[in-house]
Amino acid sequence: MFAPKSVAVIGASNRKGSVGRAVFTNILLNEYTGTVYPVNPKDRSISGVRSYPSVQDLPESVDMAVVVVPAAVVPSVTEECGKKGVKSLIIISAGFKEVGQDGAALEHQVSSLAQKYSLRMVCPNCLGTINTDPEVRLNASFASQMPVEGSIAFASQSGALGEAVIDYAAGEGIGFSKFISVGNKADVNENDILEYLRADPKTKVILLYVEDIVDGRKFVDTVTRVTEEKPIIAVKAGVSPEGAKAASSHTGALAGSDEAYNAILKQSGVLRVESIIDLFDYARAFAKQPPPRETE
Amino acid sequence: MFAPKSVAVIGASNRKGSVGRAVFTNILLNEYTGTVYPVNPKDRSISGVRSYPSVQDLPESVDMAVVVVPAAVVPSVTEECGKKGVKSLIIISAGFKEVGQDGAALEHQVSSLAQKYSLRMVCPNCLGTINTDPEVRLNASFASQMPVEGSIAFASQSGALGEAVIDYAAGEGIGFSKFISVGNKADVNENDILEYLRADPKTKVILLYVEDIVDGRKFVDTVTRVTEEKPIIAVKAGVSPEGAKAASSHTGALAGSDEAYNAILKQSGVLRVESIIDLFDYARAFAKQPPPRETE
Repeated sequence: MFAPKSVAVIGASNRKGSVGRAVFTNILLNEYTGTVYPVNPKDRSISGVRSYPSVQDLPESVDMAVVVVPAAVVPSVTEECGKKGVKSLIIISAGFKEVGQDGAALEHQVSSLAQKYSLRMVCPNCLGTINTDPEVRLNASFASQMPVEGSIAFASQSGALGEAVIDYAAGEGIGFSKFISVGNKADVNENDILEYLRADPKTKVILLYVEDIVDGRKFVDTVTRVTEEKPIIAVKAGVSPEGAKAASSHTGALAGSDEAYNAILKQSGVLRVESIIDLFDYARAFAKQPPPRETE
Repeated sequence: MFAPKSVAVIGASNRKGSVGRAVFTNILLNEYTGTVYPVNPKDRSISGVRSYPSVQDLPESVDMAVVVVPAAVVPSVTEECGKKGVKSLIIISAGFKEVGQDGAALEHQVSSLAQKYSLRMVCPNCLGTINTDPEVRLNASFASQMPVEGSIAFASQSGALGEAVIDYAAGEGIGFSKFISVGNKADVNENDILEYLRADPKTKVILLYVEDIVDGRKFVDTVTRVTEEKPIIAVKAGVSPEGAKAASSHTGALAGSDEAYNAILKQSGVLRVESIIDLFDYARAFAKQPPPRETE
């Protein structure tokens, strides 16, 4: 999912200021080493590149599709991707679980289709993913800039915060190995990401911004295993009751009590910090050091 | 030729520093409003865009092809373009008339093929063309930058000088309507260009850098007609015997005597200046004024 050989951007657009334009040009203009196809039912070309009316019209199947179409169309697009043999989806579109019952039903529909076709999915309602590895160079997000290469991976449940972090890191000259905004976690969740990052040779330190945790028991297991190899530093949202409410409205998830999370994080060896600035201060220190172990 | 709806870059490349890469990315990264296809027999994608092994494999015919392959391959590429229904070619490749008899024979072969298929051609041995019109935005050249939009058209027989002029103009904040490097003028020559620019609503002033003139009589006719509507300012190369020799080696053409050219230019209403800086000083003044007529 971080290193596809070909990507389709479904909902790519020529309209200035649109997310469909931002995502397509982010892939196109940042020296992606694979092939990117715009999919748009109206325009003949997007940013100078031949466009295709639908996924089915593409001249080959693609490893990944980034979906930037209205929520109501996402199920039919998911089905088309499944039929075409696409392996993974990043659904950037919002309008799912986070907007209420109708959205949740739509999200469930998309999840069922993904299962039917064995599609892995990031999101919906996310900023996308970024891989700075020179062998890939994929910015499949609508972030306003491509981070420089580095050894820090950042996984954020909030797209808006993710973008702020990319901007902050750029100003500070901090590089990333991977960036991922997980959105509503309809399929891929923090545990999948942590397992991936554990094995990623480009990542030395893992930063998390979490609003809720899907499966607390599995999270503790996963994190305990990962922190034996790489440090994890986390900012947990929702420390105040207002924050918890904000976190809930972002992604439709319920934030647990702060005390419970604190216990989980501490138990599993995660360093919890209070702010994004702290997150990077620690990350920079750890990026230069071997992983912290109590036995050392 | 300045406003094709689709362009193939034959010899597009991922290799840093190559002309094939410069030309393809110049079209791709400068917001061309049409569709650009890379053609390359080896790579699956060029700068993230799906590539095709040959012109025949393209999913549609294209209005124009920019050719950046070794000279020896240009005849077969020209034939393929003709068969595919391509309307015009810009041949950037060098190694024709300017390198001697063998090159001249090759150039003749290419010209015959172009005639056979009714292909119009710019060059060979040129920098390419640029159209800053926001409706088109085509930088089909290997110039290191895209000029800003303006009302000055520049036609240069020397690619190297053309590039220097683009850089100089960028530093001075001077914009162009069209830029064209005519190279060896195997087909399209200064007369064709002048006729086109006369009718171009975006062009107010025409600048020429000439090393030789293919058809003096026709040139006088054309220029006399054009200068009734738009001023032409020219720098003529080869004012010293060394300069004449340099001009000849650039494009294989014979530079006429300086006196003869002076007479031709004066007779037809062209303002001749001695340097590129003078060229732009006059151009800026004229761009703000109606065309100069002796009767006014």
